Amino acid sequence: MRIVVINPNTTASMTAGIDAAARSVARPDAEIVSVTSPMGPVSIESHYDEALAVPGVLAAVDANPGADGYLLACFGDPGLDAAREIAVAPVLGIAEAAMHLAAPLGRGFSIVTTLSRTVGRARDLVDHYGFTRSCRGVHACEIPVLDLDSNPDAADIITAACAETLLHDRSDAIVLGCAGMADLAARIGADIGAPVIDGVAAGVGMLSALASVGARTGTRGGEFAAPPAKRYTGLLEPFARGS
Amino acid sequence: MRIVVINPNTTASMTAGIDAAARSVARPDAEIVSVTSPMGPVSIESHYDEALAVPGVLAAVDANPGADGYLLACFGDPGLDAAREIAVAPVLGIAEAAMHLAAPLGRGFSIVTTLSRTVGRARDLVDHYGFTRSCRGVHACEIPVLDLDSNPDAADIITAACAETLLHDRSDAIVLGCAGMADLAARIGADIGAPVIDGVAAGVGMLSALASVGARTGTRGGEFAAPPAKRYTGLLEPFARGS
Amino acid sequence: MRIVVINPNTTASMTAGIDAAARSVARPDAEIVSVTSPMGPVSIESHYDEALAVPGVLAAVDANPGADGYLLACFGDPGLDAAREIAVAPVLGIAEAAMHLAAPLGRGFSIVTTLSRTVGRARDLVDHYGFTRSCRGVHACEIPVLDLDSNPDAADIITAACAETLLHDRSDAIVLGCAGMADLAARIGADIGAPVIDGVAAGVGMLSALASVGARTGTRGGEFAAPPAKRYTGLLEPFARGS
Amino acid sequence: MRIVVINPNTTASMTAGIDAAARSVARPDAEIVSVTSPMGPVSIESHYDEALAVPGVLAAVDANPGADGYLLACFGDPGLDAAREIAVAPVLGIAEAAMHLAAPLGRGFSIVTTLSRTVGRARDLVDHYGFTRSCRGVHACEIPVLDLDSNPDAADIITAACAETLLHDRSDAIVLGCAGMADLAARIGADIGAPVIDGVAAGVGMLSALASVGARTGTRGGEFAAPPAKRYTGLLEPFARGS
Amino acid sequence: MRIVVINPNTTASMTAGIDAAARSVARPDAEIVSVTSPMGPVSIESHYDEALAVPGVLAAVDANPGADGYLLACFGDPGLDAAREIAVAPVLGIAEAAMHLAAPLGRGFSIVTTLSRTVGRARDLVDHYGFTRSCRGVHACEIPVLDLDSNPDAADIITAACAETLLHDRSDAIVLGCAGMADLAARIGADIGAPVIDGVAAGVGMLSALASVGARTGTRGGEFAAPPAKRYTGLLEPFARGS
Amino acid sequence: MRIVVINPNTTASMTAGIDAAARSVARPDAEIVSVTSPMGPVSIESHYDEALAVPGVLAAVDANPGADGYLLACFGDPGLDAAREIAVAPVLGIAEAAMHLAAPLGRGFSIVTTLSRTVGRARDLVDHYGFTRSCRGVHACEIPVLDLDSNPDAADIITAACAETLLHDRSDAIVLGCAGMADLAARIGADIGAPVIDGVAAGVGMLSALASVGARTGTRGGEFAAPPAKRYTGLLEPFARGS
Repeated sequence: MRIVVINPNTTASMTAGIDAAARSVARPDAEIVSVTSPMGPVSIESHYDEALAVPGVLAAVDANPGADGYLLACFGDPGLDAAREIAVAPVLGIAEAAMHLAAPLGRGFSIVTTLSRTVGRARDLVDHYGFTRSCRGVHACEIPVLDLDSNPDAADIITAACAETLLHDRSDAIVLGCAGMADLAARIGADIGAPVIDGVAAGVGMLSALASVGARTGTRGGEFAAPPAKRYTGLLEPFARGS
Repeated sequence: MRIVVINPNTTASMTAGIDAAARSVARPDAEIVSVTSPMGPVSIESHYDEALAVPGVLAAVDANPGADGYLLACFGDPGLDAAREIAVAPVLGIAEAAMHLAAPLGRGFSIVTTLSRTVGRARDLVDHYGFTRSCRGVHACEIPVLDLDSNPDAADIITAACAETLLHDRSDAIVLGCAGMADLAARIGADIGAPVIDGVAAGVGMLSALASVGARTGTRGGEFAAPPAKRYTGLLEPFARGS
Repeated sequence: MRIVVINPNTTASMTAGIDAAARSVARPDAEIVSVTSPMGPVSIESHYDEALAVPGVLAAVDANPGADGYLLACFGDPGLDAAREIAVAPVLGIAEAAMHLAAPLGRGFSIVTTLSRTVGRARDLVDHYGFTRSCRGVHACEIPVLDLDSNPDAADIITAACAETLLHDRSDAIVLGCAGMADLAARIGADIGAPVIDGVAAGVGMLSALASVGARTGTRGGEFAAPPAKRYTGLLEPFARGS
Repeated sequence: MRIVVINPNTTASMTAGIDAAARSVARPDAEIVSVTSPMGPVSIESHYDEALAVPGVLAAVDANPGADGYLLACFGDPGLDAAREIAVAPVLGIAEAAMHLAAPLGRGFSIVTTLSRTVGRARDLVDHYGFTRSCRGVHACEIPVLDLDSNPDAADIITAACAETLLHDRSDAIVLGCAGMADLAARIGADIGAPVIDGVAAGVGMLSALASVGARTGTRGGEFAAPPAKRYTGLLEPFARGS
Repeated sequence: MRIVVINPNTTASMTAGIDAAARSVARPDAEIVSVTSPMGPVSIESHYDEALAVPGVLAAVDANPGADGYLLACFGDPGLDAAREIAVAPVLGIAEAAMHLAAPLGRGFSIVTTLSRTVGRARDLVDHYGFTRSCRGVHACEIPVLDLDSNPDAADIITAACAETLLHDRSDAIVLGCAGMADLAARIGADIGAPVIDGVAAGVGMLSALASVGARTGTRGGEFAAPPAKRYTGLLEPFARGS
Repeated sequence: MRIVVINPNTTASMTAGIDAAARSVARPDAEIVSVTSPMGPVSIESHYDEALAVPGVLAAVDANPGADGYLLACFGDPGLDAAREIAVAPVLGIAEAAMHLAAPLGRGFSIVTTLSRTVGRARDLVDHYGFTRSCRGVHACEIPVLDLDSNPDAADIITAACAETLLHDRSDAIVLGCAGMADLAARIGADIGAPVIDGVAAGVGMLSALASVGARTGTRGGEFAAPPAKRYTGLLEPFARGS
């Protein structure tokens, strides 16, 4: 099986970390293809960034046909519904995947994310996916996305935030709220003595599960069938789809 | 007060109808500026279309600074959260506005939209805005957006769908689920003997109300402050924002 | 258009403040008629007061026929459903109106009200109108209704409560929980740097929006049709309605 | 123990039926005192009627001090929160009581009420009391309240409605939606082979349970403490409470 | 009427306390039969204990046929749905009963339970029975079940926890979260000045109410009809039911 | 990695089918160990059966220590919380696993189960796991569990039920509501042209994902720590746990 992992941030060094996290958990018979979005923000830290990351995500799906699953490696799950219309195989966002895997690990999980301005989007997704009761809190550690790599204290700061969150929320598990934290999950889990779920690994695992049963996004309800052919104008003309 | 109405569909003839609907309800002291999105799909009928309508919406907001309110005239409310970050004045989507105005007209309203594949998005917005209990149903009349204008039977088909929906759902009001239906609201309301709310008129009304009290999107919570300055790459490079 | 604003508290001096707030935001072509309830409690600070404010509200609606909208200017929205049955034009409560206008100003709003014993009713309305997720808290400043006017420190106390609430709840906007605070909205908003919504102004704005599209309360669902003719007994005999 | 049953409809013959239903289930050591509201509508079939039944309910509570429990025998539970402030003993509405007793009888119950225009209020109470998931439907049999007694076919029509509702909603129990149906519960239950709960009997049972443990409405939260002393004006002047 | 109270903990001394609490509130014409579960854990303090208390509960129901109601006297309500299938009369759990009686005593109640590891189960039941909004908190006093009797400070510790909870949650009433606390309800209520509901007394009261109207668990929906006849194997062979 | 699949039904032939379904999707490096519960009902078709299947499930977990994951292969997920306390590795029920995998395949899924009397339990789990909005319906095909194998028409009947359900609920995917249907998923999916998720395969996939990241049930919240040591009595004495 082949799983395409798309980094919606257009920063290639970040994709490398995501790729490593994905490979570390992949089935022996799975091929991981990690790609960087071809256009858009170098990091996603606002609704504006996220909205403008979507065209690149969709272009990346189109550029990588024939996979058995697509993973959108940004915790805002940008472009998820649209990607489901144009991909034949299942598409997951890492927020979605992480929550689905974390929920069965106890009574409740908490999310530790980057900047507090992204908390609203995370809570939106929590409610949208049905985890209103499972998710006990969303907390920010106030480290910008691209500093996760460059700030030498990042791991310590995030670990401290996870430990404090666990106690404060009386949670059983932590979900990491940014693809840039993927490489830290195991270390933090060991430090705080609780399961720590990274969405990249979770997503690869869930897509593998879906691929193993041959699942595809359902199109019989109509909503996720291929989008109607249509003309596009201006800068986005290349996104037009033929019939 | 000046209210900018943005048509996220890049079809100028549709903007004309939206503009007329907006002007017909505006306060005497309000200026209506209706603009067509500069890029993207000619009509919005899928998650893919809607996602790719967002860059044009954001460009249109940026191109029309200094207004007292912005209305996004597509029932999927595309780019709403992002637009709120970059506009100083309040921003509403027409789905949001229509539901806020329809809810107080009785125990429950129903939505009549274009294609059934858009029902999922409408239900999403219903739940997101808090109208889960007020909204009794979302029904499609299966007329594509651009046929609303060209199909001579469109008004009759939509009227019949509204009448049937009213009975079936035991609703007190109808919300029209597409900006392209804006000109039909009064006629359908008269025909079916029930309030029919079009989001364009509703949006102009609510933005006027917000402007009259000098309200702005709140930024103290952090989420809707101006997005961080950042480099953008590829086709979307022009969307980068300086600090 | 003519909008009737009813003060359910039978204190005329309070009506004057409400009237000023209403006029300050009205469309140039709108006529504001503010009336004091003809019977009941001089101020509303308990479920008992609120229940007994309702007959006066209904009498005031009946005494002012032919308007384009009715606003009930007490944050408990007393008699709202009943008023909708007997008024031909739309009826709004100020709690309802304020929440509908505040919700689109960000991710969440908080309510600052008078006495803590009214918090329960406010939360009830929050849930009833669908703002369970939008409303992040209801806080009391412990100033009785009629002291809002006479207590020289009232404005400062309320401003402090709003500022503290904003921080504590991480809210984007404040809703003022009493018609007696209507004149303070602009001042508090300037002081705390966040949108502050007063229900009187919000209600006039929303009723104007409804009137501009010619909306009426829906009666096709049956619930809000005129009440059946019926005999009334005792003190309330005058409230009987003929067929 | 003494339980006061208040008929909010000012029709004494209806009180007699309610009294019989209450007595038939009372503990041997319980005294039932059934009273007719001293003012207001002869029957309650609209929001208007219900709102104007509240003063009479409150007057009846005040006129019957010292009881161990008060039951409001109208399915809209009119004036419940206000009555709780002025009564020392617990107060229940029959809708509330019936739902609390019906819920444990299976997975879900349905409500059969009088006129369809009252369905909205019933659903409101369902949600308010927390029975959104337990209540599978609210159905009207379209018999006006005062015809329950005079229409010779009333029992058959209601029985048929209950039987049909049971099948349609796949419910385990029926709740009767009007105090005027109290005498029919046993007969309908036998006919349809399912538990049928009448709120008058349910309320007497629940109040007996509360009285047996000496429970009183909680006032420590502040909301249900005695209402503040206050002047009342006009027709309602007699409702003023001293300090 | 005859009410069977089953102690799912296999500790007979605990049954004596439960029996006393049940008798103290019973109707004069009610017979209370309290039985100790014939197998399983001596106390219930984990999901494991609770799951393994269920066979004893079911055996106790089968061993006591012909009652008018069955009460399961453990706050996890173990085996409730299964007991409803095999008992002809209504079955209640004490958590369920206590919440139904506490809800009408104000705006919200809080639960004070034994060990914090049981809080999750209590919250589950709160949500399951529909009291998500009514229940403002679940707090543990960290006293193991069997120490409730032997620890001389137990009453003081629990009283302190109730008082603190009442203030912290701004609740109107307290629900005691363990059958072993049944004898303390009156004393704690007097001490903290608020209603304190014990589920054993509440359950006897509600079952009396149900019995007084002749209610039985509904079986028309199919779910609670007698379980199909079936072979059982191993240690549990005696639990097989014939056709 | 080693995954233990427990059949809570004590029918060994059923375990064989479950084992085949589990093996068909397992990672190349995963070992599947399928075991039949050592005690309890031969099939699970009532709350009574399910409650009494739990001791066997717990005994099977204890008898198979050291695995990387445990799957409870009955759609009622019997004993899930208790199993989580005694297993070191993650434990999933097949209902839980199937819903987590089906939700991302579209806007909504429906469940097709065996007997209608099990629908209530399925809906309970839907709500408990947070899929209230995702799950559009639960439908029974009225085939008893042990007939799934022996009835030659079973596959056709279930396929027809799935096809009808898909249309009726406008769902995007089907979840099979019984471990005994595991072998039919692929065939039905091909026949109805929509994704069909069997919980056994889903559970193996999700447990593999959890094992790949080294996740364990969280015990820091306290609820899922090992149960306290305790004496057990009667038939269940062997279930006592030492300290």
